[in-house]
Amino acid sequence: MKLYDYFRSSASFRVRIALNLKGIAYDLHHVHLVKEGGQQLQSLYANINPQKLVPSLESDDGLLTQSLAIIEFLDEQYPEPALLPQDAILRAHVRAFAQHIACEIHPLNNLRVLRYLVHSLNITEEQKISWYHHWLREGFNGLEALLSQNQPQRFCFGDSPTLADLCLVPQIYNALRFEFDMSAYPRLNQVNEQCLKLDAFQKALPENHPRALDK
Amino acid sequence: MKLYDYFRSSASFRVRIALNLKGIAYDLHHVHLVKEGGQQLQSLYANINPQKLVPSLESDDGLLTQSLAIIEFLDEQYPEPALLPQDAILRAHVRAFAQHIACEIHPLNNLRVLRYLVHSLNITEEQKISWYHHWLREGFNGLEALLSQNQPQRFCFGDSPTLADLCLVPQIYNALRFEFDMSAYPRLNQVNEQCLKLDAFQKALPENHPRALDK
Repeated sequence: MKLYDYFRSSASFRVRIALNLKGIAYDLHHVHLVKEGGQQLQSLYANINPQKLVPSLESDDGLLTQSLAIIEFLDEQYPEPALLPQDAILRAHVRAFAQHIACEIHPLNNLRVLRYLVHSLNITEEQKISWYHHWLREGFNGLEALLSQNQPQRFCFGDSPTLADLCLVPQIYNALRFEFDMSAYPRLNQVNEQCLKLDAFQKALPENHPRALDK
Repeated sequence: MKLYDYFRSSASFRVRIALNLKGIAYDLHHVHLVKEGGQQLQSLYANINPQKLVPSLESDDGLLTQSLAIIEFLDEQYPEPALLPQDAILRAHVRAFAQHIACEIHPLNNLRVLRYLVHSLNITEEQKISWYHHWLREGFNGLEALLSQNQPQRFCFGDSPTLADLCLVPQIYNALRFEFDMSAYPRLNQVNEQCLKLDAFQKALPENHPRALDK
């Protein structure tokens, strides 16, 4: 399989963790979101993925897009280790947790949105950071409250990583990069620490990406 | 089941369509996102859903959140009519299409974000409309290109509505409400028209919501 990604894209980071956990071999095709005004916007990539976003995964059956859809597909095709629980209600909770990040936090703080705020709405650096932190706070408050409803577990939902953890770790990574104070979120931090003990997460980190130095 | 929703919330609109298509009886509990500075932020609802967002669905097994997770749960529990295709690749495409709306368009244009832009970043009405239209254009361009790769079908993916259509119709509804020019999107418009011929979609429309007049 070939993964079109960008080392710092947190949606790509999620998919790299999934591929690593499942031990699926993949080639990386780096789409640099900063160079050349964004390689994802150039025709070379736009012809591959008209949504002009990373990641996308070239499988034997064609191109797959959207990180959560890709991960669900991988989980169906390579069931071990499972990234979604067998129990239907628990599965709904895992998906909701993941979507709370993928639909409520990340979309507001990604590169193209920050660019629009700065270049089209002329906001200051301070306003940009406030915006970034605001949506993190809104989102993490809800997620911390959610985890706190149950006894602490090793991962978000049980003893093995699920789609929820695959979304949480890249989001916390971004938060720390933007110097967001994580001290109000002991449960989220605890899960993050556990995840980062695993090779699959370590290998997927932006700084361990083979093109990380290609800035 | 009890659905906590808001008549104009497009994430709620998606779930109402799913419930209608499957013929599942539900009670509505209206959470007014405008009245009282937003009833979703008041403790009455925040104690139910700490993420303070609508929709949420009270099932026999507890509260479910996030519209796409709720719809996948309903599809698993009430398999007919199916909202996701049997074929794994097609299922991945349907999920990706839905997420392209739920993760890339809608999060940028919902009420809380527009409020932040107006009240905290002091943008003008004109800038707000430009922002709104910009993300619609970015998103719809990709989706129109995607549908145009195949022969026209009655719905986004085949002869019956899927999760993709459940996300598309509310998004187009919002676009029209904000006077966005849809003329560049014949394939999306065609699907929208087909969907709106169905009772399940009609019944779920904001203006047909029992609390629509409760402005």
